Amino acid sequence: MLTIHHLASSQSERIVWLCEELGLPYDLIRYERDPATRSAPPAYKALHPFGTSPAITDGDLVLGESSAIVDYLLARHGEGRLSLAVDDTHFADYLYWLHFANGSFIPSVMMNFALQMLGVADTDTTRMLRGRNALALRMSETRLAAVPYFAGDRFTAADIMMVAPLKGSRDLSGYPYIRAYVERMAERPAYRRAMQKAEPGSAERLD
Amino acid sequence: MLTIHHLASSQSERIVWLCEELGLPYDLIRYERDPATRSAPPAYKALHPFGTSPAITDGDLVLGESSAIVDYLLARHGEGRLSLAVDDTHFADYLYWLHFANGSFIPSVMMNFALQMLGVADTDTTRMLRGRNALALRMSETRLAAVPYFAGDRFTAADIMMVAPLKGSRDLSGYPYIRAYVERMAERPAYRRAMQKAEPGSAERLD
Repeated sequence: MLTIHHLASSQSERIVWLCEELGLPYDLIRYERDPATRSAPPAYKALHPFGTSPAITDGDLVLGESSAIVDYLLARHGEGRLSLAVDDTHFADYLYWLHFANGSFIPSVMMNFALQMLGVADTDTTRMLRGRNALALRMSETRLAAVPYFAGDRFTAADIMMVAPLKGSRDLSGYPYIRAYVERMAERPAYRRAMQKAEPGSAERLD
Repeated sequence: MLTIHHLASSQSERIVWLCEELGLPYDLIRYERDPATRSAPPAYKALHPFGTSPAITDGDLVLGESSAIVDYLLARHGEGRLSLAVDDTHFADYLYWLHFANGSFIPSVMMNFALQMLGVADTDTTRMLRGRNALALRMSETRLAAVPYFAGDRFTAADIMMVAPLKGSRDLSGYPYIRAYVERMAERPAYRRAMQKAEPGSAERLD
């Protein structure tokens, strides 16, 4: 039996959403963050050597890393859903956005967060470091002005991967297509079920 | 025809290495960095909207993001080589390290590099930010003390993904298993051919 170890307000939301889209049965264990430091609790960090969210267990297996978990669940239980076939016209687009989310976009969100924590003054270096996040947002806006989903005309796991860094970038006021897209994703029945289970009692968290 | 746009001393080395392991024909175009700033040249940044290395072109397709390119080439030309099947005992291990490389490890290398560029004094925050890279190295060392390759007993694309952040972490003196592994990877005929083509005239770059 699959268990999703969900750290409150973290990337593990995506795994719950994916399971709901696939109609896959799972147990959900929720872990609260330390109210002062916002750190994951020791029990969460002990699940997996790297200690980050998400983590799943499936029998004896403990698996971390969002992209690995998504690939694992799609390969084992996807039956071709939420991914594109190798001969699909949009196959490369699907792969690009699926991997861009955690390979480039989330690191840019984390870099901005680190710069904020460090409280360093603006310099050419900080502007260069912040530039990647702004560029990721502009690229996403351009993409969503052209197609309804990141892979093209079909909802795929690339969307499940991309929503987290879009939400994490916070100020979306200059990006009307991204805002409309994130709102559209939040209306999906599977997304709503996932959030009701993963973040019960939270108000809509997109704004 | 596949073209690899290789930025000198960058992650695009991996794509050259992958093609050599697969025996896949490709054209290689090499781009030099600015000698002063170490930036990619404008011609490289213009290849793809995000402007980072690697980038490939394949007919009309322009594709960025290491993990997307690796998945694309394996799906189109791998014929099952360098990856593990979904029913393989080590399938989840394969996926984990394949994705850990760019999803967590390289961002930790980039964070250390950013902290160095910013020149900020050591604080609890900088120590916390640097901690991820040290943890990634300890995890890699533990893994390589137990198995010869990241996925287990077979060389896979997970190794091609992992060598770059291991090399990028620079000080490997406390990690004998990582050092021995990186040296072993550098002895692979496909790796040697890749480096001769991608970094001609360079001395062995592992030390």
